[in-house]
Amino acid sequence: MDSHLDNILKDMDEDDIQAYLLTKFTNVEYISNYKPTSFAFCIIKENPIIYASSMDMEIAKNNSTIEVKEYESFEVMLRELKEEGISSLAIEPTLPFSSYEKLRDDFTITSKTYVDKQRMIKTPQEIEKITKATEIAQKSFLQLDILNNQNTEKEIAFDLVRLMIENGADKESFDTIVTSGASSSLPHAIPEAKQLEKPILIDWGAIFEGYCSDNTRTMVYTEAQHEIWDIVAEAHDKAIKAIRPGLKCIEVDKVARDIITDYGYGDRFIHSTGHSLGLDIHETPGFSIRDETVIEEGMVITVEPGIYLEGEFGVRLEDTVAIYKKANVIGDLPLMID
Amino acid sequence: MDSHLDNILKDMDEDDIQAYLLTKFTNVEYISNYKPTSFAFCIIKENPIIYASSMDMEIAKNNSTIEVKEYESFEVMLRELKEEGISSLAIEPTLPFSSYEKLRDDFTITSKTYVDKQRMIKTPQEIEKITKATEIAQKSFLQLDILNNQNTEKEIAFDLVRLMIENGADKESFDTIVTSGASSSLPHAIPEAKQLEKPILIDWGAIFEGYCSDNTRTMVYTEAQHEIWDIVAEAHDKAIKAIRPGLKCIEVDKVARDIITDYGYGDRFIHSTGHSLGLDIHETPGFSIRDETVIEEGMVITVEPGIYLEGEFGVRLEDTVAIYKKANVIGDLPLMID
Repeated sequence: MDSHLDNILKDMDEDDIQAYLLTKFTNVEYISNYKPTSFAFCIIKENPIIYASSMDMEIAKNNSTIEVKEYESFEVMLRELKEEGISSLAIEPTLPFSSYEKLRDDFTITSKTYVDKQRMIKTPQEIEKITKATEIAQKSFLQLDILNNQNTEKEIAFDLVRLMIENGADKESFDTIVTSGASSSLPHAIPEAKQLEKPILIDWGAIFEGYCSDNTRTMVYTEAQHEIWDIVAEAHDKAIKAIRPGLKCIEVDKVARDIITDYGYGDRFIHSTGHSLGLDIHETPGFSIRDETVIEEGMVITVEPGIYLEGEFGVRLEDTVAIYKKANVIGDLPLMID
Repeated sequence: MDSHLDNILKDMDEDDIQAYLLTKFTNVEYISNYKPTSFAFCIIKENPIIYASSMDMEIAKNNSTIEVKEYESFEVMLRELKEEGISSLAIEPTLPFSSYEKLRDDFTITSKTYVDKQRMIKTPQEIEKITKATEIAQKSFLQLDILNNQNTEKEIAFDLVRLMIENGADKESFDTIVTSGASSSLPHAIPEAKQLEKPILIDWGAIFEGYCSDNTRTMVYTEAQHEIWDIVAEAHDKAIKAIRPGLKCIEVDKVARDIITDYGYGDRFIHSTGHSLGLDIHETPGFSIRDETVIEEGMVITVEPGIYLEGEFGVRLEDTVAIYKKANVIGDLPLMID
């Protein structure tokens, strides 16, 4: 925690920035170990401070490694910053315009991603937590009796979450997707109150001690479905094999996209090949057609190619990899589920 | 839906604004009936348009009452706006700074809350959905066998969500709070893997056809707990009785806060008396010490006073009211649960 803070302070110093305002909950958590439940203003400076809401004071005092003060008003906070002689303030790119508007007259504002950049590289402890989250999620998936039950998509999604919690998860890392038949062609399908059709696509994850997991499996039945599955599996496997430090993210996306394009489905692969995860389910960098970030050891990124045939069905296969000299798949769930 | 759009266009016209950019998912949903699952740029203008991600195109085309176009890049979107001769652009106060930064050189930017303001006043259809959500949530609560079961807080929270879904909810409207004993003094407590202690505080809600419900009940046992419960119940009842169109929100907050203060617990009532709800669980206006909004017919707002004794316990009682000539409590769950 303290080394996180030291690194940020060093970055700020290099850019001649006196204070850095954090409001994104997971950024505040990353720096202080306190995750806000309503709102908080965390100000990184020589003597860092968190202005927490009165509602959060008890939990903030218990958890935060940084000094906590009760938030009174934006005006009081601004006055205290100005009294310290602070005139150059960095903000996160996600800061809402309404907050920026209240700051821009009093400070020189620059948007910075110091914390997000540091969060790109996971510590061994963070990778352990992501691994534990993945293990819980995969174990729970295997305990589901998907095919021999008469439950609806919605009920199966629900049972999977319950199993993850029983197996030690804090909660699910995003709304569990259980979709089947034609609706599997929607990458973000919402489980319906209908019996399973085929194919069956499940995209799910757990949170363990704050850290997310993310996996997708598609169970296919007809020859046409198997054919698409094989293409997606090839893209999945070859993209993972291609990953190594020094390569650019866009190059990994290209490996997966080229394979799918060669088979004639390039325009049916309608999203990126992968995204980082950690305290958030979507972090940077990602394997996308735009991301020029150079891959480094310690990154944890999903690989999730998919082909979506509108009106027919979709197939997506997703694993999360931790990057060392090469990419290690986290967890050991087979890609093909019978 | 169309009248929503017409009202916004009229507001824009009065302010001489040519286009209004919406990115908040529930605002896009309110205007178009399509709720984005990843990102979308909805631009309200003479001929309104939504730029949706490729992932969402199928669902957007199926649901949106507004023309949908596949998003290519921010640059393409800007160019198309400029080609239409648009130079004055309104944005939502929640727009992230990073998006604002990409717009400010090309447009005169003003932050506007046209949609949020319209969402303050619910239509009869919206109130029906909130009522249905509340009925599902309250029925599910009564089906829970809270006291005669050996489940942990976490498991009870989970069972409550399952019951809500079985009873027809889309999902929970926020992370269900089941907390007990000393942790009930945290307004946003997270259910733990521990057996219930006393008192027991449950704060829960359902979503039905997109619309949220919100209730809290606290089950008390000792004399000290009953004493605090009575004060909170008095604040709850008298605040609800005070509500009428024409009054300011801050005045309703004052009714509840004055009662609790008179009993000597003013500094232990550490949040607002209530918030609006609808497509979002937290909307404006709210019954708070800062909100000068004048109450109008059609608003739907929670009333949820609480007293939090750190290290001992907390009590909160919450109902949601629909405002007509006076405030009608939605649902019929008794305040005292034995």
